[in-house]
Amino acid sequence: MAEEKTLDDLFLDTLKDIYFAEKQIVKALPKMAKAAQSPDLKAGFEQHLEETHGHVERLEQIFELLDKPARGKTCDAILGILEEGKSIMEDFKGTIALDAGLVSAAQAVEHYEIARYGTLKTWAGQLGHTDAVGLLDATLKEEVATDKKLSQVAIADANRKAA
Amino acid sequence: MAEEKTLDDLFLDTLKDIYFAEKQIVKALPKMAKAAQSPDLKAGFEQHLEETHGHVERLEQIFELLDKPARGKTCDAILGILEEGKSIMEDFKGTIALDAGLVSAAQAVEHYEIARYGTLKTWAGQLGHTDAVGLLDATLKEEVATDKKLSQVAIADANRKAA
Repeated sequence: MAEEKTLDDLFLDTLKDIYFAEKQIVKALPKMAKAAQSPDLKAGFEQHLEETHGHVERLEQIFELLDKPARGKTCDAILGILEEGKSIMEDFKGTIALDAGLVSAAQAVEHYEIARYGTLKTWAGQLGHTDAVGLLDATLKEEVATDKKLSQVAIADANRKAA
Repeated sequence: MAEEKTLDDLFLDTLKDIYFAEKQIVKALPKMAKAAQSPDLKAGFEQHLEETHGHVERLEQIFELLDKPARGKTCDAILGILEEGKSIMEDFKGTIALDAGLVSAAQAVEHYEIARYGTLKTWAGQLGHTDAVGLLDATLKEEVATDKKLSQVAIADANRKAA
């Protein structure tokens, strides 16, 4: 028999998923910043770490708006994505391709977040959680901007190495 | 001591990663089509399955251009993303939110692919693999279009349920 689950449950589940994911990203970014060779990439990861702390706080505000405890739920997707990033850091340590690999790993993370925040924003609108829409949209815009910045860093890095 | 790995190695590794991922997606899409409640979503998954067969073939063409055997490499990211999709299918089976969950799962898959194909296309350009750039770009455009179509299906589905 079907359980009486609704879009509210799916919204809350997905909120817990991305909350877990953001906390994993907070742990991963300092390692990526440390590994990065180019000062631009290093600074980019450090700046994104600051932003990510803000994303965690926004999610906590949404849990509060929903009157639910802020609780994560294991997110296999982000664990897999970060595991691949770790492999790249190990396999390409000390090589000319390391930064390209780090950018690639970071963009996979950004795209996961863009997918999740896009979905959550749509659902928040459908469920009438107007305040949550604004918070989710603010984070979504920062994730999209970070993805674009990473593309620019990658091109600048490649041009420098080709010069 | 650092190994003499270059961007060529990273390109080939990432090609193997997405080749493995596409083959997993070929296995997952029929299950998602079967689970979908709305005929539009079902048809969308079936159409994307056809396209995905084409993506596998394009990757095989690129392996051939590089004179390398077409071989996958376990991609933890796609395994995690698909695992989450499976959980949603189980947890929301028979509920009003199932299709929304399926769209969300599919968009997480699309965004992973968009990240990977974007990266591969950039690297192919930097490495002078001009023919590969065209093939990767063709798939990238289809993934972006699928992501947009999924957003439209989700909105139409929500409007129908709200009506």
